[in-house]
Amino acid sequence: MALIIHVGSSRAQWWKEHLQSLLPDVPCFLWDDPVDPASIEFAVVWKPPVGGLKRFPNLRCIVSMGAGIDHVLADTELPAGIPIIRTTGPDLTQRMREYVCLHVLRLHRRLPEIEAAQDAREWLQLINPPAPGRRVGVMGLGNLGADCARALGLIGFDVAGWARTAKALDGVEVFAGPDELPAFLGRTEILVCLLPLTPATHGILDRHLFAQLPAGASVINVARGEHLVDDDLLAALDSGHLAYATLDVFHQEPLPPEHPFWDHPKVLVTPHVGSLIDPVAGGAVIAANVRRFIEGEPIADMVDLDKGY
Amino acid sequence: MALIIHVGSSRAQWWKEHLQSLLPDVPCFLWDDPVDPASIEFAVVWKPPVGGLKRFPNLRCIVSMGAGIDHVLADTELPAGIPIIRTTGPDLTQRMREYVCLHVLRLHRRLPEIEAAQDAREWLQLINPPAPGRRVGVMGLGNLGADCARALGLIGFDVAGWARTAKALDGVEVFAGPDELPAFLGRTEILVCLLPLTPATHGILDRHLFAQLPAGASVINVARGEHLVDDDLLAALDSGHLAYATLDVFHQEPLPPEHPFWDHPKVLVTPHVGSLIDPVAGGAVIAANVRRFIEGEPIADMVDLDKGY
Repeated sequence: MALIIHVGSSRAQWWKEHLQSLLPDVPCFLWDDPVDPASIEFAVVWKPPVGGLKRFPNLRCIVSMGAGIDHVLADTELPAGIPIIRTTGPDLTQRMREYVCLHVLRLHRRLPEIEAAQDAREWLQLINPPAPGRRVGVMGLGNLGADCARALGLIGFDVAGWARTAKALDGVEVFAGPDELPAFLGRTEILVCLLPLTPATHGILDRHLFAQLPAGASVINVARGEHLVDDDLLAALDSGHLAYATLDVFHQEPLPPEHPFWDHPKVLVTPHVGSLIDPVAGGAVIAANVRRFIEGEPIADMVDLDKGY
Repeated sequence: MALIIHVGSSRAQWWKEHLQSLLPDVPCFLWDDPVDPASIEFAVVWKPPVGGLKRFPNLRCIVSMGAGIDHVLADTELPAGIPIIRTTGPDLTQRMREYVCLHVLRLHRRLPEIEAAQDAREWLQLINPPAPGRRVGVMGLGNLGADCARALGLIGFDVAGWARTAKALDGVEVFAGPDELPAFLGRTEILVCLLPLTPATHGILDRHLFAQLPAGASVINVARGEHLVDDDLLAALDSGHLAYATLDVFHQEPLPPEHPFWDHPKVLVTPHVGSLIDPVAGGAVIAANVRRFIEGEPIADMVDLDKGY
């Protein structure tokens, strides 16, 4: 019984030692370590290479080092029928809440305009509506989306949410399914995308969706780059229909230096830090889930592969 | 029984009509309108000129168009013994909560560095502690400070407060009086000043106070410009002891074009918009307080002139 780790960062060795210390009875290996493939029963991965996981004939469980599993499903040769566990937990939820509250407030309070005024030494007193008069919409009401919607409501915003299926959230008006998407978009001045990436949500942030937002709306994408049609966003910003975009995720990461988002005056680029997994806190969650799997205990983060997230 | 208004903005006429509509039985005048001084019983003012109020022999009540009354007490010829009413209310509290949450989050999540990285097309992934590992300190626990401390706690920050006298606030460690100020400062990474301006707090944000903050701390002043010793802040930023300052209030407003804050790389200047009074919501609060005064009803916003705020 062994565990293999694929993490494309300079912290790989650290991850190996950390997980080993938390799972002393499960030998842990990095992707390129010499190892008997037949011994591997667990894989803890971020963006595993295509065809990489099928070389482990006794693989029992895949752990995604993040809340999304799209980067695992992107392996077109993924061995079928193997359970996948996401990594969530209070640390990731906390970090995402901070990012979303920060960037909704930044757009709500028109900080880009105030910063531009500072550059011009201009005293620009803008009167905004207070948050109860600002309609924020959160797409995706999983762990992260639901928490963010709740936190925005506590700050005072008029918050609605949209999800695949209806659910109840205190203080949040919930719209569900494609039929209710137009009504959700029509009332949303600041849109936050926290959807899982699935075939149904790939490219959902496109010209058709933007056209249904009120003029002057802004978009925050903190889910996956593939949710967004980059050219459609640029067109909506350049036409003036959308006011601003705050983007944390991109089709290619790091965002290539030649990409027009970098120096677009209406785009804030943040480097996929919305909810960067903390090695200490995230490692503890991963190890605890592997332990539960070994012990046959229920796992809240187990993915429903029929839904795809 | 008449009411006179001093507001130094282009909206003066609007204010007059608004208050008149809310107080139809009290004739309302602007500062420069021809009026019998003996008829004036109420003055609704922002930064009244020195010696201006003493010309009304029958003045019964002064209403400050804001939560602070320092701009009224700055009138060295202010007639003695006249009650002063502050203007607070949920709208001002809401707006201040937004400003403080935005700017604490902005510093916590190191947005200035991320924005500078965008300018350089640099993918700069910084790992921060999550909010429960960030110690925020709020100086001043009146209506606004207490609400901000609570809101920061709901986001997840480790919040402490400091006030003149001890008070209980759920989830907030409260330090009181000069004796406990060093302990409060020593644990504060992001300091928010929401103090009333009194002789005891004038210039409180000085080199002596900054030296008690841990290295790398940041300061947000959203109270009054006179709380801050500008040169001491510049020295603390330039020495590297303080990381950033976010300033909404200044000794002279608008901030003069030649002031070094405008283009200091570690200073964000916002134009006194922390809690800009909304004419509609603020006017309703002012009119309601004048009405209560006329009817002899208790007024929560009545200033305790012994405390000076």
